[in-house]
Amino acid sequence: MYFVTYQYNAFSEGGILTADEKKVLPITTIGKLMGLKFPERLIDFIPMATDKLLSDVQNIMTANPNLGIDLSLVKLLAPIPKPPRNIFCLGKNYADHAKEIKNIPSLTELPESPIYFSKLPTSVTGPDTVILSHANATKEIDYEVELAIVIGKEGSDIPKEKAEEYIFGYTIANDITARDLQKKHSQWYKGKSLDTFCPLGPKILHKSTLKIPFNIALTCRVNDEIRQHSTTSHMIFDIPTIISDLSKGITLLPGDIILTGTPAGVGCARKPPLFLQHGDKIEAEIEKIGVLRNIIE
Amino acid sequence: MYFVTYQYNAFSEGGILTADEKKVLPITTIGKLMGLKFPERLIDFIPMATDKLLSDVQNIMTANPNLGIDLSLVKLLAPIPKPPRNIFCLGKNYADHAKEIKNIPSLTELPESPIYFSKLPTSVTGPDTVILSHANATKEIDYEVELAIVIGKEGSDIPKEKAEEYIFGYTIANDITARDLQKKHSQWYKGKSLDTFCPLGPKILHKSTLKIPFNIALTCRVNDEIRQHSTTSHMIFDIPTIISDLSKGITLLPGDIILTGTPAGVGCARKPPLFLQHGDKIEAEIEKIGVLRNIIE
Repeated sequence: MYFVTYQYNAFSEGGILTADEKKVLPITTIGKLMGLKFPERLIDFIPMATDKLLSDVQNIMTANPNLGIDLSLVKLLAPIPKPPRNIFCLGKNYADHAKEIKNIPSLTELPESPIYFSKLPTSVTGPDTVILSHANATKEIDYEVELAIVIGKEGSDIPKEKAEEYIFGYTIANDITARDLQKKHSQWYKGKSLDTFCPLGPKILHKSTLKIPFNIALTCRVNDEIRQHSTTSHMIFDIPTIISDLSKGITLLPGDIILTGTPAGVGCARKPPLFLQHGDKIEAEIEKIGVLRNIIE
Repeated sequence: MYFVTYQYNAFSEGGILTADEKKVLPITTIGKLMGLKFPERLIDFIPMATDKLLSDVQNIMTANPNLGIDLSLVKLLAPIPKPPRNIFCLGKNYADHAKEIKNIPSLTELPESPIYFSKLPTSVTGPDTVILSHANATKEIDYEVELAIVIGKEGSDIPKEKAEEYIFGYTIANDITARDLQKKHSQWYKGKSLDTFCPLGPKILHKSTLKIPFNIALTCRVNDEIRQHSTTSHMIFDIPTIISDLSKGITLLPGDIILTGTPAGVGCARKPPLFLQHGDKIEAEIEKIGVLRNIIE
């Protein structure tokens, strides 16, 4: 089951794709069919989405196969267009990537513990949008395809074996990074947080379709050339470990987004380094989830 | 003019202190006196608060000196209890502090550029509250008194000479830090972001009373013993530089909070290190702004 946020007639709301993935059904419409009032925003529906409720949703959608808005008529946005707090991110969570980026100080060894940083909510942008080049702030824009976890339920001090209960689903992120700012400001926060530096989406795949442990391919293409290609089995810290460790002393909330790190192949590790340029098309693809396409301004 | 968020009869809203600082007038009440509808939450009032409007507010309050709720009857909360995105923070922005903390890797040299990181909104807590000790996550809790800037107006690429226009006012923060987690996770984010690790308040002083450049004292006391004492003139990067540099490529929003770094005297720099313990009383005081008092669980 795929969840999206879409714009239709200048109005944006959450929806669920039909089984053939050709149409989207507004969450509010599904609620009406079930005699319930569902919220307009996907982020507000997420904490309600128990297995039981989603099973009923599935049944209603199957019983009404002709309903829905044709996907060609809507514009898909980031599934959570305005996150209520920063995006959680992991650094150096694929060994091949941790090794390739030795030209950035303090990034040379494999981490013994997860490395967390954040990206501003204002860095989030949707699929098929423009990533601003911020020419006055950076000359070194780089891509990073990442599997993004969407949290479904509030919790802290979550044990590994219960981690999956706290997940709503998975989407695609491109952890766009200004390498010069990442280095200049010592901590990575600013270089990761420029406006439009977190393309997200287009779809959230519900966790029921992708049971832990899973192994799916991640690929990043720039102008159709493959730059990154790996699988999620190469993560150093796996998803249950991330959720358990991050939630020690920190309350995770429904709608929280956690980027799980990127594999090798980033532009700054090439010799010579190869940064994104005006007009470049970047496609971040994750098996079973979809393709997230953006253009550099 | 001091702005607060307070709880009275189980209801919380924004207010302004009377000239004698003994009473608080609800922002909504002030609006009614002016024939206007003002929002309940302080964060929603901030972007409306032009100099002209605040001058009218001042006049209405002067004309109605008997109105207001006695401060002894209310509970002051953090002025922005639920920030809509993470708190911006600066690291190593006082030279004496940057030098004292050589026992933490990658913190030894004076920064050539501002070091930015963030704290989660769920770390915010009010004055006179308990800071959770998170005994399962950390053994090394430390204090850091900091001047906090509250942004008043949306903007990016703000020139230094216009920085003050984008400020609403100033408050006090205690950048509570789990030193072991700060080190363990390499990036500082997690060690800075545990639940209740950002006491904030109690009052926001409007910028009109504290014109840039200003020089005010910061003090931190633990169980009445002075641990930190300096003045804001010792910042390495001053307030206009911070706002101008941070806003390059990043859109600042009304209600954003920026912690400007802490002076020397933190517990981890003592020999032997001295961390906060159960029952410790921490007072972060900033001249002209007030005192922020909290207790370790």
